[in-house]
Amino acid sequence: PRRRQDPTVQHELGVSLEDIYKGCTKKMKITRKVLNPDGQSTRVEDKVLTINIKPGWKSGTKITFPKEGDQHPGRVPADIVFLIKDKPHAKFKREAADIRYVHKLPLRDALCGLTVNVPTLDGTTIPLKITEVIKPNMTKRIAGQGLPNPKLSGRRGDLIVEFDVKFPEKLESSVREILRDTLPATI
Amino acid sequence: PRRRQDPTVQHELGVSLEDIYKGCTKKMKITRKVLNPDGQSTRVEDKVLTINIKPGWKSGTKITFPKEGDQHPGRVPADIVFLIKDKPHAKFKREAADIRYVHKLPLRDALCGLTVNVPTLDGTTIPLKITEVIKPNMTKRIAGQGLPNPKLSGRRGDLIVEFDVKFPEKLESSVREILRDTLPATI
Repeated sequence: PRRRQDPTVQHELGVSLEDIYKGCTKKMKITRKVLNPDGQSTRVEDKVLTINIKPGWKSGTKITFPKEGDQHPGRVPADIVFLIKDKPHAKFKREAADIRYVHKLPLRDALCGLTVNVPTLDGTTIPLKITEVIKPNMTKRIAGQGLPNPKLSGRRGDLIVEFDVKFPEKLESSVREILRDTLPATI
Repeated sequence: PRRRQDPTVQHELGVSLEDIYKGCTKKMKITRKVLNPDGQSTRVEDKVLTINIKPGWKSGTKITFPKEGDQHPGRVPADIVFLIKDKPHAKFKREAADIRYVHKLPLRDALCGLTVNVPTLDGTTIPLKITEVIKPNMTKRIAGQGLPNPKLSGRRGDLIVEFDVKFPEKLESSVREILRDTLPATI
C-alpha cells in the first residue's frame, strides 16, 4: 500500500525589497525528527535549507523542499514550503515590478519648484528637478529604477515618485492678504 | 393544468434626484395585446400604468404590475416590472441617503477662505462660510439636506460638500518669488 504523506508544512518568509532587488540567499534552520536505523525510534536533528531568492521574485512565490518534515515510521514526511512575502518597507511600496516612493512636500515647494533627492533600492539617490507646479497626487516615473524582472533579465520596472502636497494648517491673516493678491482668482 | 405565465418584462425607469427627493407620480403608457371576447383573436390597446415614487426610494427598487403583459390564448400574461434607476445629476452624486456635491475652487480660495453657495435638492442654496485652510478632498457635511428615508419619515441624509482644489497650471517667476517668501517652508 502507498504510504500516506503528512500534510505540507508552510512557513512565511519575509524578504526586504533590497533583497528582492539584488537577489539573496536565505539559510533557514529547521528542526526535525529523523528516524533512527531501527526504523522505529526518532531523534531530533537540525538541518539548514538554502533558498536562493532570485532578483525580482514576486510576493507569493513558493519554494518546496520535498519530504523535509518530521520522519515517522510508516509515513512519508511532509513537504516543507516557504512562502515569500514582501517585508513592509519604510520608503517604498511595491507595485509588481514598479516601486512607489511617496515624497511629502510643503505647498510652497509644490508651487515654487524644488529638487527631490529620490532614494533608490541600491542606496543611492537620484536628483529629480521639478520646475512645474506640482498638483496633489501627481506622479513622475524614473524608468528602470524599479525591480528586475525575474523572467527577462536586464528588464527593470520603474520607480514611481508620488507627491503628497502638505497644506499649511493655518495661515496668518497678513499671509492670506498677500496670497489673495498674488494667486490667480479663477480656476 | 395550470397555465404557464410568460416571462417577466422589465423596463428601466430613470428618476431624477429631485423627483426622488420630493417623490412623484410617473405615468407609463404601455402598448399591449388584449384578447377579444372570442378568446382567440387579439387587439392592441394602450394602457397607462401609474407608479407612485415615494421620497427616498433607492435605485434598484422594483415595482411589479402583475399580468399586464400581452394576452395570448391559453397563457398567463407576463408581469410588467419597472426598475427604478437614478438619473445622473449634473451637481449631485447619491450615496445612499446622502448626496455629495463637489465644489471646484482655486487654490487661492482654499488658502484665503471663501463662502460657498451650496446648491440643494429643493433648488435653494445654503451659504457655507469657510475660514480655515481647505485641504484637497476635504469635506463638510450639511446635516439633513440629503434624501429622505422612505422608511423613517422626517429623517433625512446629509449633503456632503467635497472640495476639489484646483492648482494654477503655471506661475510667473515673480509670483513664485513672493510665494517662496510668504508660505511656510516646512511641513
